[in-house]
Amino acid sequence: MTVVESRLTATERSFHVEAYEKIEYTLDYVDGVFDPANPQLADAFSAWGRCLAVVDRNVLAMRGEELRAYFEHHGIDLRVQEVRIAEVHKSLRTVEQLVDAFADFGLIRKEPVLVVGGGLTTDVAGFACAAYKRSTDYVRIPTTLIGLIDASVSIKVGANHGHLKNRLGAYHASKQVLLDFSFLGTLPTDQLRNGIAEIIKIATVGDADLFGRLEKYAEELLEHSFGFGPEGGHVREAGGAITYDAIKRMLELEVPNLHELDLDRVIAFGHTWSPTLELAPERPLFHGHAIAVDMAYSATLAARCGYITEADRDRVHSLFTRLGLSVDSPYLTPELIEQATASILQTRDGRLRAALPRPIGTCHFDSDLHVSDLVDALADHRALCSGLERGGVGLDAFTPAEVEAPVQRTS
Amino acid sequence: MTVVESRLTATERSFHVEAYEKIEYTLDYVDGVFDPANPQLADAFSAWGRCLAVVDRNVLAMRGEELRAYFEHHGIDLRVQEVRIAEVHKSLRTVEQLVDAFADFGLIRKEPVLVVGGGLTTDVAGFACAAYKRSTDYVRIPTTLIGLIDASVSIKVGANHGHLKNRLGAYHASKQVLLDFSFLGTLPTDQLRNGIAEIIKIATVGDADLFGRLEKYAEELLEHSFGFGPEGGHVREAGGAITYDAIKRMLELEVPNLHELDLDRVIAFGHTWSPTLELAPERPLFHGHAIAVDMAYSATLAARCGYITEADRDRVHSLFTRLGLSVDSPYLTPELIEQATASILQTRDGRLRAALPRPIGTCHFDSDLHVSDLVDALADHRALCSGLERGGVGLDAFTPAEVEAPVQRTS
Ligand SMILES: NC(=O)c1ccc[n+]([C@@H]2O[C@H](COP(=O)([O-])OP(=O)(O)OC[C@H]3O[C@@H](n4cnc5c(N)ncnc54)[C@H](O)[C@@H]3O)[C@@H](O)[C@H]2O)c1
Ligand SMILES: NC(=O)c1ccc[n+]([C@@H]2O[C@H](COP(=O)([O-])OP(=O)(O)OC[C@H]3O[C@@H](n4cnc5c(N)ncnc54)[C@H](O)[C@@H]3O)[C@@H](O)[C@H]2O)c1
Ligand SMILES: [Zn+2]
Ligand SMILES: [Zn+2]
Repeated sequence: MTVVESRLTATERSFHVEAYEKIEYTLDYVDGVFDPANPQLADAFSAWGRCLAVVDRNVLAMRGEELRAYFEHHGIDLRVQEVRIAEVHKSLRTVEQLVDAFADFGLIRKEPVLVVGGGLTTDVAGFACAAYKRSTDYVRIPTTLIGLIDASVSIKVGANHGHLKNRLGAYHASKQVLLDFSFLGTLPTDQLRNGIAEIIKIATVGDADLFGRLEKYAEELLEHSFGFGPEGGHVREAGGAITYDAIKRMLELEVPNLHELDLDRVIAFGHTWSPTLELAPERPLFHGHAIAVDMAYSATLAARCGYITEADRDRVHSLFTRLGLSVDSPYLTPELIEQATASILQTRDGRLRAALPRPIGTCHFDSDLHVSDLVDALADHRALCSGLERGGVGLDAFTPAEVEAPVQRTS
Repeated sequence: MTVVESRLTATERSFHVEAYEKIEYTLDYVDGVFDPANPQLADAFSAWGRCLAVVDRNVLAMRGEELRAYFEHHGIDLRVQEVRIAEVHKSLRTVEQLVDAFADFGLIRKEPVLVVGGGLTTDVAGFACAAYKRSTDYVRIPTTLIGLIDASVSIKVGANHGHLKNRLGAYHASKQVLLDFSFLGTLPTDQLRNGIAEIIKIATVGDADLFGRLEKYAEELLEHSFGFGPEGGHVREAGGAITYDAIKRMLELEVPNLHELDLDRVIAFGHTWSPTLELAPERPLFHGHAIAVDMAYSATLAARCGYITEADRDRVHSLFTRLGLSVDSPYLTPELIEQATASILQTRDGRLRAALPRPIGTCHFDSDLHVSDLVDALADHRALCSGLERGGVGLDAFTPAEVEAPVQRTS
């Protein structure tokens, strides 16, 4: 039962307010969201007769014609505002450009904005929507694996501030997310890998069965783009069940804690040391590789603590290497571990709260690890990793340089 | 009873989330908030051993020494970041400067920022707090009458975007507001007038008894700064009860609707046509005068509709003129009424929802007025006003030019 009331307590010398904001949103599967036969997208805008769409530049190049034809078919005026895709453009400058576009369009109270693109686009446009008139509705169509199973599942939106990643932002749910996995058909392999790393995250600390299915299908998912690449049909069902379960598990874990008031967060697995690691090289690491290194190292730690068996630790390591994800990095040094630990303590209220599998599929938060333990574990981890080969799919030309993301550092 | 649960509904093709964010905050009266004998301010920061304070430049000049001495006395390190006070500085640029100051200070998760100043400072700094790391706690000390009875009672924060007032913002409550009315002792009369206009607003549509007391004490409140000016002691009790009741009534009205989902808002009385009126002259009108004109005109309208008697209408008009607040403006033309009506419809979902007294002390929302009615009423209103004299306190040098705020237009 949910009874929600606000309460004002007035005494002679004080007022106390307790109130509740309702947060309500829906994620709907749509196959072929721009197919004119599908009404879902039009339904969100037909009452307004028009739509302002903020679209990822690359997606616009690939799918713009289809998008325009869709709205034309449904008799809805479309105006498109494109967003450039690089972390330097995930900025307040872009937020201001979007706000100018909203104002110029004359957005009416409660009229939603459409946002189409990867996590970068949905984050920065979502933040513009959060700030515009203190809150503007929006509808998201995620087009990357990260977007589909992570960014658009979350209500967190934001922008970078100088070199400080996601330093500004808001909690602002989009009323609706339209999930169309066929976008994966055109997504580059390195982007798929980023997304799979987040699915492995959820599985390792949240769903042992999902972990088992990832072990079974890992290479095929990557090779056939979860069934949406050429000749991928046979893996589409398994891939669909895997992404569905990943989204569901993430929602189960996050919905009770949408504003991150509880700092023990399962989905922070892989995100304890990686924020510092990701930005350590001149050109930042790919997010997927940075968190894979963190998770692999965390698995080594968990085995040392007796939380998982060595066999399970090796299963984790092997899943990453099979997919061509990093398990170690020359940047993961004792100094970096120390620096990253100090940095994460600041955002976690002074406690480490390292999410670790205990066993695979469940999560334990460890705040008792000392830097010396962490450094000892790193030596172990390095020794283990030197015996591993990075594997498989799409890695013919895989060199260490490729784990660095092809964007400029935003300092 | 308040039972709050989040709910996730997962079907084969969709996920639906319903969750609630708890909003909790306190307003506490403190007499002499910077008096070292008062622990309340120190209590909010002693656990951290330090305090980053964002302070209105003019308040800092007047009260900076006292503020520093207070924190020194309590053994808390103080760093001060000053905010320049003009609507042009209520901008994203200022938000960014504040965010730089937060980052440079190394603000820790859950560590609050102190914000001291009028509504401009608390709005822009509150917005910086809302955006920084998606949500940063803060404590407000309002130092103007508007701040004490309006801006810091609200959870709305924000900044201007170019010439668009408060176009960007958030709903972000400060955990605590410390209410010290002795700040009024140094507040210029025109600022007091702005604040009284907002109290008259609450009274006219929300509290008939309060309206009666305003009629009784109007000139004295203004002349003696609610009892905090020289020789003002005799009016302090009446003034205190009036401001207390204004805050209480505003909270009663707003707490059930903190996110403005219900667009029928009592406290929007006086704020239907004034947003356009306020910005009509080259130098904007003072907010208090702009809303006074709107309220006076609304009273004329309400009388024409039979919602209030002509005697009550005249009481409203007279209260404004006695205080030297405008009841009419050369900028309030039929064209402006038309333009302002079109503009407010956009923010009110296509309905006028004009808050009108029916009778004094209660509110009726009128969406049935046509522009032709409004223009007819304006002719009435002008005729009525031509017979009124603007009155009294602090108005020896009162000329029409003075109703314009001494800030640059922000276009
Ligand atoms: N809000 C959250 O909770 C959350 C969660 C995870 C990540 N993020 C943020 O998301 C961003 C990363 O998002 P991302 O991984 O989706 O990357 P991205 O948005 O930067 O997109 C990656 C690349 O893929 C391209 N692209 C997008 N869709 C495509 C498609 N269908 N086919 C081909 N190319 C396509 C883009 O143009 C871009 O070049 C980061 O800024 C990160 O901070 C946010
Ligand atoms: N958040 C809300 O709900 C809300 C409500 C009302 C107004 N506002 C906003 O508040 C702003 C207006 O605030 P305001 O009326 O407090 O004006 P203000 O903050 O601009 O301050 C007015 C002047 O008084 C000075 N001052 C402040 N405290 C003083 C003191 N104790 N003694 C002497 N001088 C002092 C300031 O330096 C400034 O020069 C506007 O930007 C408006 O949009 C917000
Ligand atoms: Zn991540
Ligand atoms: Zn106002």
